Amino acid sequence: MPKNRLEAFADGIFAFAATLLILNLAVDQHNALAPQLLAIWPSYAAYVISFITIGIIWANHHTFMHQIAHVDRFFLVSSVLFLMFIAFIPFPTRLLALDVETADAQAAALLYGITLFAVSILFNVLWRYAASRNRLLKQDADPRVVEGISRSYLLGPTLYGVATLVALLNPQLSAGLYGAIAAVYIGESSIFGRRPGNQGG
Amino acid sequence: MPKNRLEAFADGIFAFAATLLILNLAVDQHNALAPQLLAIWPSYAAYVISFITIGIIWANHHTFMHQIAHVDRFFLVSSVLFLMFIAFIPFPTRLLALDVETADAQAAALLYGITLFAVSILFNVLWRYAASRNRLLKQDADPRVVEGISRSYLLGPTLYGVATLVALLNPQLSAGLYGAIAAVYIGESSIFGRRPGNQGG
Amino acid sequence: MPKNRLEAFADGIFAFAATLLILNLAVDQHNALAPQLLAIWPSYAAYVISFITIGIIWANHHTFMHQIAHVDRFFLVSSVLFLMFIAFIPFPTRLLALDVETADAQAAALLYGITLFAVSILFNVLWRYAASRNRLLKQDADPRVVEGISRSYLLGPTLYGVATLVALLNPQLSAGLYGAIAAVYIGESSIFGRRPGNQGG
Amino acid sequence: MPKNRLEAFADGIFAFAATLLILNLAVDQHNALAPQLLAIWPSYAAYVISFITIGIIWANHHTFMHQIAHVDRFFLVSSVLFLMFIAFIPFPTRLLALDVETADAQAAALLYGITLFAVSILFNVLWRYAASRNRLLKQDADPRVVEGISRSYLLGPTLYGVATLVALLNPQLSAGLYGAIAAVYIGESSIFGRRPGNQGG
Repeated sequence: MPKNRLEAFADGIFAFAATLLILNLAVDQHNALAPQLLAIWPSYAAYVISFITIGIIWANHHTFMHQIAHVDRFFLVSSVLFLMFIAFIPFPTRLLALDVETADAQAAALLYGITLFAVSILFNVLWRYAASRNRLLKQDADPRVVEGISRSYLLGPTLYGVATLVALLNPQLSAGLYGAIAAVYIGESSIFGRRPGNQGG
Repeated sequence: MPKNRLEAFADGIFAFAATLLILNLAVDQHNALAPQLLAIWPSYAAYVISFITIGIIWANHHTFMHQIAHVDRFFLVSSVLFLMFIAFIPFPTRLLALDVETADAQAAALLYGITLFAVSILFNVLWRYAASRNRLLKQDADPRVVEGISRSYLLGPTLYGVATLVALLNPQLSAGLYGAIAAVYIGESSIFGRRPGNQGG
Repeated sequence: MPKNRLEAFADGIFAFAATLLILNLAVDQHNALAPQLLAIWPSYAAYVISFITIGIIWANHHTFMHQIAHVDRFFLVSSVLFLMFIAFIPFPTRLLALDVETADAQAAALLYGITLFAVSILFNVLWRYAASRNRLLKQDADPRVVEGISRSYLLGPTLYGVATLVALLNPQLSAGLYGAIAAVYIGESSIFGRRPGNQGG
Repeated sequence: MPKNRLEAFADGIFAFAATLLILNLAVDQHNALAPQLLAIWPSYAAYVISFITIGIIWANHHTFMHQIAHVDRFFLVSSVLFLMFIAFIPFPTRLLALDVETADAQAAALLYGITLFAVSILFNVLWRYAASRNRLLKQDADPRVVEGISRSYLLGPTLYGVATLVALLNPQLSAGLYGAIAAVYIGESSIFGRRPGNQGG
């Protein structure tokens, strides 16, 4: 089974989930606009963090699928579950933006963290299923690259697991960590991306 | 007429219909968030069931189109009707989530079932039109695989027909059956997907 | 300039415009569901007519682009204008569905008709620009097929022009004509699609 | 790393952001439709301007990516940031449409201008990163074409920078300039597009 339609379906879900985030931004027509545009800064921050997070997961999925030769039914079905959590991201993003300064911040930060934790776990399941005994990889996949990817993907569940647990103590700090994780990935990509010979990493 | 643009259009509709499901999740800003996040469990369940159902239909469409060599106008137009019911799924999903515990559960469960029944009937129409006398199949399509697909596709209308009729007696049981059908397909894919030599089924 | 990204962009707009139609369906949570599901029949009818209309235009665009070898800037920009009216369709569809039985039916039917009339005019502009002196066509484009397409595309502006004018006298009849046009195209495709040697028409 | 999935993701965001603009059009069911359809002319104008603007950026992205041979991580991540501002466009479009005649016009025109200014800056970053020392360009990229693109892309930040500053003095004039910029690009494309030997420009 070729992999191109899975990529088209996944690219569609990634693109729509990211674009739907804009529907979370809203102002009230009955009040002055300028102060509202400043007051909804958590909505901008949440938009930026979730868009970048989805974008980074998409870019990693891009790199990942580049190593894959073909897909089977188990991989397809697991991909659907993975994409189900990607498409879920706009919901906790809206809640976190609206409630980060209220008593509801903890519930929102927990739901956000659990969603991203599930995404990162399923990302690892997909990769480890594909890479285990080179089940779905290209014949010429470099074992060192494969092992490097396997190691780097453990970072996701760790970071999102910690940030989610922090929400139990301090939801605002947890929200800051979600932003920091996105910033780290952006920064790391920018640094490594410029290094010659690392275009696939 | 090549089939690649039909696949692109279909992948767009599948991905978009699945992603739009998230718009069905909503909470009230005037009440505490945590209890609401627990109280809307039918919305999560409906999201999961409909997303997985759309994902499985997409995966089957993927397998199906893999056997097709080219398409004609009748197939294109029938595909549009098929996709019209796919894109309809978010509406009964929202109704079933909101009303599963109310007196409106029966109407919602019936509409949900009728929609999925129509999807499965049109899926069979598309396949049988394409497979009859190998009209649109690849030259090297294996007759046993084709016959196996033809037989397995009869299951969809049967299961959704029964679950829809159950809604007349017990809408909650009917909703449970919609979830069970999705679970069976997920389970079966996982089991068969791991079996060597069955990557196309 | 290759044509494949224009096709991807167009397929995206067609697919999203069609899928967004589902957001036009809504019921009121404060009233019983079953009678509402029957009362909103104009919304179902509008959904079906607009989805099929978009689907048929997509299928014709598919056939049309199949004759095109490459695109230029004028064709790209005209395609954007054409797609702008495709993406507009959900708005008059909602108005026509909500108002077909009220005093607002005429305004809604006029806006619907003007939108589809503009779509059909721009479709002709695109085709005639591409086909005139074989500007953008494939080298091996059959002149008889090209002329046949040129003639058949005149039907769209004629039918939608008449149906729009009818809205001035009787908006309900006009709405019926929009449905009849979709039905005629579906029927014609089904009939011609089965005729051997006409798979590209 | 091949570029085709970036194109698919970008085409999805472009197409989806453009199609979502239609959700900005709304009327009130409790008042007569015809006068409302005339009164919301700023919403039509904003829809047209933003759709065409997104379409032109997409067409330029199309031309641009045609010169690119491959992408690296930095380019991918910068593309995500670029697309984040594309997907943001529907929000200031709605505000500008609703508020162009009110005291909130200035805030709306500023947010619209800042968004488009950021888009044009990131477009230049992407291009200059790719073109600098032919980092990501095709081997056979014509230096004169590359230099011509580099020069023409400076126009975007200049025009949107000026139009944004004008919003500080006269928001309505600023809104007119956003429309004029779209019209100039449309017109220029139409003129140059017809000139032989300029199909890629």
